[in-house]
Parts: sequence; structure tokens; C-alpha cells
Amino acid sequence: MTVEPLPAGMGREMHALVERLYPIARSITGDGLRETLAILGEGLPLEVRDVPSGTKVFDWEVPREWNIRGASITRVGGERVVDFSRSNLHVVGYSVPVRARMSLEELRPHLHSLPEHPDWIPYRTSYYRETWGFCVTHRTLEALEPGLYDVEIDASLGPGSMSYGELLIPGEEEGEVLVSTHACHPSLCNDNLSGVAVAAFLAGHLLDRRPRLSYRFLFLPGTIGAIAWLALNEAGAARIRHGLVLSCLGDPGAFTYKKSRRGDAAVDRAAALVLSRSGKEFRVGEFSPYGYDERQYCSPGFDLPVGSLTRTPWGEFEEYHTSADDLAFVTPRALEESLGVCAAIVEVLEGDLRYVNTSPKCEPRLGSRGLWKGGGGEGGPGEENLALLWVLNLSDGRHSVLDMAERSGIPFHTLAQAVQELKEAGLLEPGG
Amino acid sequence: MTVEPLPAGMGREMHALVERLYPIARSITGDGLRETLAILGEGLPLEVRDVPSGTKVFDWEVPREWNIRGASITRVGGERVVDFSRSNLHVVGYSVPVRARMSLEELRPHLHSLPEHPDWIPYRTSYYRETWGFCVTHRTLEALEPGLYDVEIDASLGPGSMSYGELLIPGEEEGEVLVSTHACHPSLCNDNLSGVAVAAFLAGHLLDRRPRLSYRFLFLPGTIGAIAWLALNEAGAARIRHGLVLSCLGDPGAFTYKKSRRGDAAVDRAAALVLSRSGKEFRVGEFSPYGYDERQYCSPGFDLPVGSLTRTPWGEFEEYHTSADDLAFVTPRALEESLGVCAAIVEVLEGDLRYVNTSPKCEPRLGSRGLWKGGGGEGGPGEENLALLWVLNLSDGRHSVLDMAERSGIPFHTLAQAVQELKEAGLLEPGG
Amino acid sequence: MTVEPLPAGMGREMHALVERLYPIARSITGDGLRETLAILGEGLPLEVRDVPSGTKVFDWEVPREWNIRGASITRVGGERVVDFSRSNLHVVGYSVPVRARMSLEELRPHLHSLPEHPDWIPYRTSYYRETWGFCVTHRTLEALEPGLYDVEIDASLGPGSMSYGELLIPGEEEGEVLVSTHACHPSLCNDNLSGVAVAAFLAGHLLDRRPRLSYRFLFLPGTIGAIAWLALNEAGAARIRHGLVLSCLGDPGAFTYKKSRRGDAAVDRAAALVLSRSGKEFRVGEFSPYGYDERQYCSPGFDLPVGSLTRTPWGEFEEYHTSADDLAFVTPRALEESLGVCAAIVEVLEGDLRYVNTSPKCEPRLGSRGLWKGGGGEGGPGEENLALLWVLNLSDGRHSVLDMAERSGIPFHTLAQAVQELKEAGLLEPGG
Repeated sequence: MTVEPLPAGMGREMHALVERLYPIARSITGDGLRETLAILGEGLPLEVRDVPSGTKVFDWEVPREWNIRGASITRVGGERVVDFSRSNLHVVGYSVPVRARMSLEELRPHLHSLPEHPDWIPYRTSYYRETWGFCVTHRTLEALEPGLYDVEIDASLGPGSMSYGELLIPGEEEGEVLVSTHACHPSLCNDNLSGVAVAAFLAGHLLDRRPRLSYRFLFLPGTIGAIAWLALNEAGAARIRHGLVLSCLGDPGAFTYKKSRRGDAAVDRAAALVLSRSGKEFRVGEFSPYGYDERQYCSPGFDLPVGSLTRTPWGEFEEYHTSADDLAFVTPRALEESLGVCAAIVEVLEGDLRYVNTSPKCEPRLGSRGLWKGGGGEGGPGEENLALLWVLNLSDGRHSVLDMAERSGIPFHTLAQAVQELKEAGLLEPGG
Repeated sequence: MTVEPLPAGMGREMHALVERLYPIARSITGDGLRETLAILGEGLPLEVRDVPSGTKVFDWEVPREWNIRGASITRVGGERVVDFSRSNLHVVGYSVPVRARMSLEELRPHLHSLPEHPDWIPYRTSYYRETWGFCVTHRTLEALEPGLYDVEIDASLGPGSMSYGELLIPGEEEGEVLVSTHACHPSLCNDNLSGVAVAAFLAGHLLDRRPRLSYRFLFLPGTIGAIAWLALNEAGAARIRHGLVLSCLGDPGAFTYKKSRRGDAAVDRAAALVLSRSGKEFRVGEFSPYGYDERQYCSPGFDLPVGSLTRTPWGEFEEYHTSADDLAFVTPRALEESLGVCAAIVEVLEGDLRYVNTSPKCEPRLGSRGLWKGGGGEGGPGEENLALLWVLNLSDGRHSVLDMAERSGIPFHTLAQAVQELKEAGLLEPGG
Repeated sequence: MTVEPLPAGMGREMHALVERLYPIARSITGDGLRETLAILGEGLPLEVRDVPSGTKVFDWEVPREWNIRGASITRVGGERVVDFSRSNLHVVGYSVPVRARMSLEELRPHLHSLPEHPDWIPYRTSYYRETWGFCVTHRTLEALEPGLYDVEIDASLGPGSMSYGELLIPGEEEGEVLVSTHACHPSLCNDNLSGVAVAAFLAGHLLDRRPRLSYRFLFLPGTIGAIAWLALNEAGAARIRHGLVLSCLGDPGAFTYKKSRRGDAAVDRAAALVLSRSGKEFRVGEFSPYGYDERQYCSPGFDLPVGSLTRTPWGEFEEYHTSADDLAFVTPRALEESLGVCAAIVEVLEGDLRYVNTSPKCEPRLGSRGLWKGGGGEGGPGEENLALLWVLNLSDGRHSVLDMAERSGIPFHTLAQAVQELKEAGLLEPGG
């Protein structure tokens, strides 16, 4: 497979998908997550799986299913001061149902705000400790007058299931590439509708082709979803050769690749190569056992070669986990660049093979085979000719095309073309 | 064992020990050295060993014993211009006895001074070439008038023995840590009463505890003492897992760690870690086969993992080997910091074990076990929680706690506490 | 063998050789190349070998022999505007014979010039594509008036042979050092009469000695010569332990060493060591499969440890492959420095052995053996004494003298002298 350039305009299409998914009240279980997967399934042959509440998954247990229909705080005899229908961030995720009249004093400990950003609503959850709460702007909080309030959270928390979406694009050879993204956050765009959109469009890009490797896309609830998938697919995890956790890919910040626990996996090197040649600002950081679902994939019992790609990482942008992570914060251009980087990493993984030079003693004649571009030696040889020489020189069965790209400084794509030409000329065979 | 923080005020106590030892006329043999070891033995269960003169130790031989009672230069018919009782640096170490009247012209070749520091007395020895001499201030030298002088060195050089002090603090497991310091210099404080004091107090600090490893402290004459100990304990040397040569630890200069010949021994990494996290200025330098007794421990026939810790290294401070290396040059504060660094290195060596995560597939639930500090995920996780995650992630039997500290940037102490908590929770077992 | 310092004045002698070879019309075959080898053979026992045209050498074939007697362009009824007798660069190398009258329009595509350097004649060849052409200054080109021209190239291209020169200086032990230089360029001084001269004088320098290793000097036509030698000496190539391709060694630019494909061969380390201690500006670059004949020696089927030494590399000086690469561009001083660097690399290769310390436990006594230079320990030990300590410390059969030089920072020469002294004292034996 050769990965062709991406069609133009994909940035706008990805942003449109983010817009469509934005209003849905997602959580780690429940109907909002199902609706999200259904929308993704419109364009992709996604399989949606449901894991029943209570299922043991390693040290954890799939939680009860949570659904919410509405929530509000109303001044008795006065106006409705908080309404879930205006923002699904208003309710602390996994809040237990409430219907009560209480004083402001009693209500106050259940209200969360961001004093440093008085117009933003924070995002809070409490999956594993039963409680209830509201997230409000600090301006709202400060305007509340003493008195009685009617508080209602019309939610249910009970046996059900946890859903996730899975899509396998089969390849020609053994070995899988895992692309995993969390899809459990409500109206938050960069974290992580951006990751969902980039993963979905990357899948679409690959679906039309016949890749060499298989690609498994997972749209999961964070943490518990990855844990459940690993627990239910323990044997399958061994097929994973490379992996990427995608999130926070829609903001305009610099790219950040966080290496896998192994630190020198092919995907780590591929991502570093692509970013270093991208002409864009970027950072490549070491693994740490905190972050997104790479925590689970890189736990010592799995130690999968899975890295994490973001633009600005979680917690390093002010809008993180607030209502300001909205549709304006993510841009078509940023999404399109992110998809381009992912596609370029895929191109490297697809083409990273080893070859054997069939004419390894001295250089073979390239001119007489019509492979040498340009004249008889005046000026420099040009990058395409150098690519031929590098591929021939390092094709001893011990160097892969990624090795050649790192060592030569020549773009991977140019080397991959040289490989193709040399194979056609009979000067190169797969091997090593 | 957990190494507790050092009690305050130890700097002053160490300085007091330096003050007490300062006046004694030490050499590589003789009563001054014995008196020094006896004083150290007051507070420590030190074993003093005597090796007879003439004992063959590898390529060397234990020298004759040297003792000195007094020495002077007196202008005939005039005043006493040099008197050993005023400074024991006045006599070249191992000078043969002299009692003679001679002209200034004859005397002159036996006088040593420092023209660039006219008020300082240099320190000179001649262990292996029979001679005699006096070290004087340049001002004294220049004031000498032509004429006759009575010269007397009341010393003895003959069969006897060479003493050294040894203290073993037994540990719970196999393997020893060597702490070696030279104790043969007369009235010189930084080189090396500072090293003697820090070693003695480190021993005292460990004596009250039950360390995991055994600790062997040696107070030796430089060079010949270390050679003798190695020759007489050749089999025992194989038990040494880590070692430090201590000297020049009382001046206010930056810390300097010189690596063992191996360059990547655990003690090398432990010292670099401790210094890099100490908030103090420091250098870590490569091994060289010159310096203190690490020369012998790191000779190719032993190649022990022994590094050297100083503040300003020998020869790099002006006061080195002169009367200006006196009680004012070493400070309680510098000594206390040095002891702190040594104790922190010990803490790393004690805690540098490998563990196995008993729940290695995905993260175990920390919140439900009461191990997670703080709330449900807002803000960063905090260093203590990160320590738990790092220990769990790297506890695959192949990474030690030192590896974790280097890789995570988290203080060793915090990681050691996380290890303890995880062991108690049954999530960690020794192994690897 | 100890490589003695080079006699003074060699720079002028090398420049005189360049001057003598400069006028000869060389190519990859033919009488000019033979005349060049004959001149080199006056001072060296060079063996000249001839490989018949058509001989198959790996993927290539030895070309037909080309000889040229004269060439000119004459305005009909006017003056001779280009004459080969004024510069042998005027004719494109391997031009087929021509005798024709043609219009300027017809002639024009056969003329090559350098618009950016209107007074320089470019150097062009067309070995493997039959054509003819003239290289002229741009000023000449622009002055040509429309009209008819008589064009003549009095050359022959037919069966014959390709010559090269080979010289083996046998050593005491197994293993060869290859010194290879291309000798096929006509009147171009830096590329590569400078390399020819330095190689010839290095050979002369070694001829008077009995080196430890054997040295094989090759004066070859570029590319096809190296390919032919490797094809005809495939088994012999396995004896090559170290190698240098020499070229562009007469300009005043900084030294440039390009590593072998292996990247960490002894010759790579030796060259880097010599240059880093030379006090001269230099670069050490990574291997690339383009350049001079290291391309062939480092092809994957051979992968010989052969690096390339130049001053300013090909293509990085403006005069490259033009008539400005003339006798004024190369200087005696630059040639002499280059020879000195080559001789120093040879000294490292000759002395890079491993030894075993016969007294490996603690330091042996150096003073009693008369090996320690200077007094009893005051001041620093001095570089010669440190060299003794380093050699003793690292002589465990696993470290070579090159390792010692890299690690200690002490000049190789000083270490080699220490080795000699310690061997004589019985403290060192070959081994490892």
C-alpha cells in the first residue's frame, strides 16, 4: 500500500463531525455514548459492543449504567438558575438522582465553579464515589442569594452495560496497529471530540485501501473502556505491533508525542521522524504512567508499543475540562494537520520493511537501467538519486526503511519510492 | 531500613572532632595515627589492626614505623627560629633523625617554603626516599641570616607496625558497602580530618539502625593502608558491592563526585542522583587513575565499584597541603551538608531493590484501597500518587527503585514510601 | 614500529610532484593515466596493472580505452578560438572523435561554460554515454560570432585497457591498511593531485620502516578502478582492517573526516582522535553512500572499515571541477599538514593494541623502578606519569591504547611511550 495524500477539505469535514457530536451528553456508560457510536457508525462499519455492568475486568468492575434526562436548580418562588438543557457540563458526571428543596447553605457544598475563570463551567465526574453535584460559572455561584432552592437531577444509575466501538481494517500481513481514543466526555471539543474525529477520518482514509498491516480502531470510555477491552481481548493484544492513543488534536498548539513505555518502539521512532520532518513545532517526550489510555496499554503486564499523540497535552491548556473547550477552540486547520501527521505515521509503519540488495558488491549501474535521474555527474546527485544509493547501501537485511530515513535525512516517502523502483529493477528483494 | 533524617547540630559535633584531632602529629605509621584511632574508638566499636613493618603487600612492603618527639632549628647564640611544637607541619614526614650544627648554606637545601604564600607552611613527606627537611613560612626563610645553626630532629624510624581502624556494621543481607578514608595527615583539616569526621559520624548514624547491607568503614594511612587492607582481605574484597572514598568534605566548595572505574556502578548512579536533586552545586566527573585510594580499589585486578566524594577536590583549593588548611577552613555547615549527602547516598543504596507488581495488567484500583491521595481526578495527581504509578509501572522485576528515580524525576524517598505502601497493600512483592 | 616525525620540507616536495603531474591529460583509461603512474613509480616500487577493456567487474564492465592527441575549434577564415593544447579541460572526457564544419547553432549544444565564473573552464566527462563536447570559459562562449566553425577532436576510443597502480608495504603481522586515491582527473590539483601526492609521500614514509600492519596503496581511476580492484581481489579485501580514501587534501580549508559505513571502526575513532587533538579546525561527519571510492569499499557486500579524509569536501569549494582548481589553489603548507594527519592516524593504527598489566592488584611501585618522573608527590603528577597510571589501569586485556587515549585525554604518543616503558619494566605484556 502507498498512502496517498489526503484530499483537501477534510479539516472542515472533521469539524462538522465535532459540531454534530458536541451537544450529546456522553459519559462512560449510557445513551449519550451509544448515540455517539451510532453516528460514527453511519460512516464506518463500526461494531458496537456492550459489556454488562458488574463484569470483572482485571482489578476493576464495569460500573452501573448512568443516564440523565435533565437537571435544574430553581429558586423557590423565583427563576431557574441552573438548567442542564443549557449545558450538559452542569451536572457532575454519575450524579445520583436528587429531588429536594434545600437552603443555599445545604446546596453550596454540591456546587463547583472556577473562580479564576468566572464565565466558564468546569467539568467534573464522580464515577466511583456516590454523590451528586452541579458545575456552574463562578458568576452564577456568586449571584445566588440565601434562601430555599428546588434541586432536581433526573438521572438513573443501575444495572445496564458499557458500550464501545471497534473497527478492524484487515491487512495483508500479520500484525495490528491500534488506534485508541476516548469517547466518554460530554460537550468538550478538544478533549476529546478532536481525537474521535481524527481517528474516524483516519479509519475512513484506510478503509478504501488494502493496507499491509491491520488497523484496529477503538472508541472507548476512558480508563475503564481500555481496561475492559484488554481484559476481554487479552490474547488479541499480543497481535498489536504499534499503537497510538489520540486526543486533544484540534487546538492550534504544537504537536506533542509521548513515547511508549519501551521508548524505542517503531511507532516512537516513526512519530519522531514524521514530526521532525513536518516543518511544524513539536515536542517528543518520554513515557510517564499518567495521562490517557496509554497508561493501560503500557502497564507492565502488557507493555504494548503504544504512544500518545496530542497537540497541547491535557492540563496544559487553560480551557482543559471546562466549557471553554468548545467549538471555537478547535479549528479545521488544526484537525487537518493532525490527520496529516497520523497518516504520515501510518505511511512509515506501512513501509518500514527490510530489504536485501541483490547486487551488494559495489554499486550497481543505475544509469544503464534508467534509474539515475539527470546528467552525468555534474552538481549534486539530487535527493531521488541519493535515496537510491541509501536504499542500496543499507539493504543488507538488517536495516529497515525507517533506519534509512533516520540515518539519511531523506524523506520517508522518497525512500519508499526508491524501494519501489529498485524492486522493479530487480535490484532489491524483501528480506531480513 | 529507612534512613531517618539526621539530627540537627551534627555539623558542630563533627567540627569539634576535627578540633580534637587537629593537633596530633599523624603519619602513615606511628603513635599519632594510633592516638587518632583511639579517639575514634571512644565513640565507635572500631577495631584497630597493626601490620608489622616489612609485611609484603602485593608489589609493596609495609614501611618502618616513624615517630617524632620534637624538632627545631636554632641560630647558634641566638633564637630558635623553627620549632616542631608550634606546628607539626614543620618537619618533612618520615625525616630521619638529625642533630647537627651547620651553616645556612648547608641547611638551605633542606628547607621548603611557598614563595607565593609567604605566611603558609607547606606539607611535605618523603616516605620512600631517606632524607630530612623542614617546612617553613617563606617569611621565616627569608629572614634567616647567614651563620651557624643547630638543627635537631628527634625522630625514630625502625621496625614497628602500621595501624588502621576497621568497623563492620553487619546488615540483613549479603553484600557490603565500603567507606574508606585516609587518616594519615597531620594538622590538615580538610584533607583529611573532614573525611575522617564525616565517615565516623556516618558510621554512628548507621550503628543505631539495622541496615539491609553491611557497611565496612576503614580509617587508613593513604595508599599503603589501602594496599595492605586489600592484600590482607583479598577474598573479602569480593563482597564489596558499593564503595565511597571520602575526603576534603569540610570546605565550602561545590560537591565533586568522581565515578568508579566502571563508570556506571550503582554507587555512581546513586551519587549522581543525590547530588542532582540536592539543590547544591556539584560536578560528577569520570574516573581517573590518580587521586585518593580509589586508585587501589579500582586497580584492574580488583575493579571494585568505588567512587570518590569530595567538595573541592585535592589540588584545586589553594590551601591544599599547607598550614592554611586549618580549623577555620572547614565549617560545621559544610561538614553537615557532606554528611547529609553521604546519608542520602546510603538511603539510595539501601532502597535500591527490584519489585514485581502483583496486578500488572492495567492499573490496579488505588482509590478503593485508600492509596490515592486527594480527589477524583481534578488538577494534577500530585507527586505521591505519581510515585505509586511509577512504581507499579516499572515493577516488572527488571527495574530497580534507582531506575525509577532516574526515569521519573521523583525523589527517591517518595518512591521508597510508595514501595512501602504498595507492599502493604499486597500490590508489590520483592523480585527480579 | 614507532612512526617518527616527518622531515620538514615535505610540503614543498609534494607541491613539486603536483606541479609535475598537473599538465598531463588523464582520464579513467589511456596514456595520461599510464604516464602518471610511471612518474609515481620513479620514487615508489609501484606495480602497474592493466585490466583489458570489456572485463566484467561485478555489475560493470571495464570501458574502452580513450586517448586524445588534440582538439580545437577554429572560426572558418578566422582564428582558433579553443585549443586543447592550452588546457586539457577543454574537451569533455571520453568525447568521440570529431572532424566537421558546422554553424555556431549546431556547435552550441556541445559547448559547456560556467556563467557564474566567466573566466573558469568547467570539467566534464561522459564515460558511459557516447557524445562529444568542449568546455570553455563563459567569456569565450559569449564572444563567439555566428558563422561556420571547424571542429576537431583527435581522439580514439577503442579496445585497450585500464591501468592502476598498486603498492604493498608488508607488515610484521596479519592485517592490511588500505590507502586509496583516485588518479584519473586531468589538470585539477586539489581533486585529486593533492590526494595522489599525500598518498605517495605517506607510502614513502612507511617504506623506510617495518610497520606492524601491511599497507596497500591504490592509485586508481575513480569508481570503475575501485570496482575493478574489488572484483579482482575479492578474497584479498577480507584482509583489510582499516582504510582511508584520500582526496582534496591541498586546499587551506578545515579537515573533514567522513566515517566508514560502520561508523565506529577503529579508523573512524583514530581519525577523530587525531583531528580532535590536532589543534586544527575539523569536522567528523557520518557516512553517506555518495562521494569518492568509499562508496564501493563500503557497499553492503564488502562493508569495509574505510573512511574518507579530505580538507574541504568535493563540491563545497567553488573551484571544484573547474580550471580554478589549479596550482595556486593547493599549498605546500596544507599538503604538509594533511600528510601529518595521515601519519598520525597511521601511528594510532600501528600502536592500537591491548595489553595485560602483570601487577594488576593495586598500583605497582613506579618510583622504585625509576619509572616515576619527578619528585615525591608535590604538585600534579605530570602527563607522563599519568600515562603510566592510565596504561596500567586499563591494561586488562579489554581496552586498547586507542580506548586509553579517548578516555584519558592524553596524547596517543605519550601513551605509546608509557606502554614501551612498562613493557621494558616487565609490568605489561601483550594480550587481550
